Amino acid sequence: MSEDSSSALLTDHYELTMLQGALHSGAAARRSVFEMFGRRLPEGRRYGVVAGTGRFLDLLERFRFGREELDFLSDHGVVDETTLNWLSEYRFSGDVWGYGEGEAYFPGSPILVVEGTFAEAVILETLALSVYNHDSAIASAATRMRVAAGDRPLIEMGSRRTHERSAVAAARAAYVAGFSTSSNLEAGRSFGVPTGGTAAHAFTLLHDSERHAFRAQLESMGTGTTLLVDTYDVERAVRHAVDLAGPELGAIRIDSGDLGTTASRVRRQLDDLGATGTRIVVTGDLDEHSIQALAVAPVDGYGVGTSLVTGSGAPTVSLVYKLVARARGLEPDAPLEPVAKRSVGKPSRGGRKWAVRRLDDKGIAVAEEVYPHEPSDQVGTRPLLRPLVAGGEVVGHESVHDARERHRATVAELPEQALRMSRGDVALATVFH
Amino acid sequence: MSEDSSSALLTDHYELTMLQGALHSGAAARRSVFEMFGRRLPEGRRYGVVAGTGRFLDLLERFRFGREELDFLSDHGVVDETTLNWLSEYRFSGDVWGYGEGEAYFPGSPILVVEGTFAEAVILETLALSVYNHDSAIASAATRMRVAAGDRPLIEMGSRRTHERSAVAAARAAYVAGFSTSSNLEAGRSFGVPTGGTAAHAFTLLHDSERHAFRAQLESMGTGTTLLVDTYDVERAVRHAVDLAGPELGAIRIDSGDLGTTASRVRRQLDDLGATGTRIVVTGDLDEHSIQALAVAPVDGYGVGTSLVTGSGAPTVSLVYKLVARARGLEPDAPLEPVAKRSVGKPSRGGRKWAVRRLDDKGIAVAEEVYPHEPSDQVGTRPLLRPLVAGGEVVGHESVHDARERHRATVAELPEQALRMSRGDVALATVFH
Repeated sequence: MSEDSSSALLTDHYELTMLQGALHSGAAARRSVFEMFGRRLPEGRRYGVVAGTGRFLDLLERFRFGREELDFLSDHGVVDETTLNWLSEYRFSGDVWGYGEGEAYFPGSPILVVEGTFAEAVILETLALSVYNHDSAIASAATRMRVAAGDRPLIEMGSRRTHERSAVAAARAAYVAGFSTSSNLEAGRSFGVPTGGTAAHAFTLLHDSERHAFRAQLESMGTGTTLLVDTYDVERAVRHAVDLAGPELGAIRIDSGDLGTTASRVRRQLDDLGATGTRIVVTGDLDEHSIQALAVAPVDGYGVGTSLVTGSGAPTVSLVYKLVARARGLEPDAPLEPVAKRSVGKPSRGGRKWAVRRLDDKGIAVAEEVYPHEPSDQVGTRPLLRPLVAGGEVVGHESVHDARERHRATVAELPEQALRMSRGDVALATVFH
Repeated sequence: MSEDSSSALLTDHYELTMLQGALHSGAAARRSVFEMFGRRLPEGRRYGVVAGTGRFLDLLERFRFGREELDFLSDHGVVDETTLNWLSEYRFSGDVWGYGEGEAYFPGSPILVVEGTFAEAVILETLALSVYNHDSAIASAATRMRVAAGDRPLIEMGSRRTHERSAVAAARAAYVAGFSTSSNLEAGRSFGVPTGGTAAHAFTLLHDSERHAFRAQLESMGTGTTLLVDTYDVERAVRHAVDLAGPELGAIRIDSGDLGTTASRVRRQLDDLGATGTRIVVTGDLDEHSIQALAVAPVDGYGVGTSLVTGSGAPTVSLVYKLVARARGLEPDAPLEPVAKRSVGKPSRGGRKWAVRRLDDKGIAVAEEVYPHEPSDQVGTRPLLRPLVAGGEVVGHESVHDARERHRATVAELPEQALRMSRGDVALATVFH
């Protein structure tokens, strides 16, 4: 599906009225720094995973107010003529730094830092938050499933349980966090996520018998395919499957019942039939906990749907985008000063920030360190902010495969307790210098 | 944002491989009936709300495999040449009936009935489920907030806490379920949802003082605007607000602290300052329960974000799309026969269904009745399925305003216990005849 249209109206009404007010007062031109961070992780999580960076950069390049967008704003009196004129020329001309996609993050990590005039930076708030809050929620759930599954492949198959476009982004975020494939074809086309899938119960029910259905699938897709064996009776289905396909049958899928016991029984049956290489894939309301519980079962792959696309209990990670500094005056070289609101129970730390991850001598992460200036001595630390946009030009494009590799490396660096499935404290303390 | 591109790849890989298998076996042409329903409501909910109908019909009209889609499928070996040829000609030519958008539903309600060849109907599964599962989850949460808020207006402002496109659909679904406005500009453009918003804390922090910020906003947007008063000190901000705007100040917004106590204090202060007509809008992590708790507080409107767009604990409603009947043979007039899989813990009822809501003599709903044929005597009942697509042509288009009105009427018809906020049983029993 074409995604080359404007992203500019994927924005809260108040971003544009604030812009109008700031153009009126003259403060629109003040140099400003906005920061995206999470005040906390979802309850019980030990680390979060940054995702959405690549999608945000793509959408940023399409954040333009063309004729259609301006007409809507004008016809509905959203903003005045001065503001419409300003929007018609809008191009973000500032700088953005951010945590690399796939990176772990912790409470207070400055995941994204946007510097520009107030006007050009404030109107990106909604879009940036939408992308990062969704994609990071999915990746933060997916990474736990990845850990729970050990070396076994994970298949993302939750498209039907979330908005049709979230589904594409969820498939992408899951891939970044280590899933092997997705059922979502648009994720294949848009982002190069490998896709897969074979058949549902409807295919068996359509045919006059299960044997008819299996034969059609095997003839059409080859013996390497995956046959779904739980439409009627699993044992009989497995017998028919091997009878028709021979021992080269690629895999069978079980979607209901007690997955562990059924998998054990089916493994024995397959082995007895000589199909020792036939893999067993299980699906059906899996989450990180049930995946972990199946670690001892003879399972060769997991398909995960609902729990993945809903962030396994945390469908948003509650990142916020806050003005943390702005120039004392209107001149381009006016010094920045920190700002922060004083609201009850919502700690905000003013000022532009830099972040590094401190590692011990074995290369294991021991702290998230945040500085009010670029730290001079970086021995034993790894810088976390990388340039994403420089002078309005996107410089941070990378493939999902690169993000996936970064995620693998960052998880390998986390202390052991970060990878436990139980509810627990945040794995790394964030130290504000 | 232009949405006129193909929706065909917003689909699970296996829908197309099933198609390939069925084209191979010849069963693709069998007349089939698929049904969408929920086996249960989200835990503790008393009714669900159907939403997404209008979006699904729009997407159905754009479900076409053009050159780009076919190239992707071909390049990645998703399906064979025969299947690609079939897809290149794809137009849904069957019939669809569905519950009207905004209608209440219950476990087993046949929300959508799709009749056509197996091939043309099966490949709509993923898209239909994505749309209905998301939009109905939002509407099912929104309707409870609507009930809890009584006559007070509800503002949808959750865009930043969900995927940027889900945000648009969520704003639409919330409007169907009775919200007054949304912050989401694209929802205004695409669906005619009224939008609104004024300013965030960043606007106050940007200026040298809160008075500067308020003055700029009032001059730019008029005294009818809403001033955000909790950046520093609420009492001082309210004093400045009325001082600058006069008693005609439209509204003030409180986004933090104990909303009930703060609203009461601010109400007294506003009244003392003569601003008796100035409204108080509260925002900040509200859900149906906190809205209900504020019923006695002097609040004139609620802004709801996270809990709305995440379905208040139920981000999906777990609707499924199942083959319930298919022709005995390949002839167009071969009789339909019911089919259903026998899986543990997942009851399925085969056969094409018709549904009515039974009302008592006061017009209050007493049961959801589902028939295996068109019921002959409909005295005291209201039919629930309306034609959406006839012979491939969409006939069910309507505006969100119509869906919103249907929702209002259907809720008015529900028994009193359906509208309680506490966790409870399903309000209406579904009777299968």
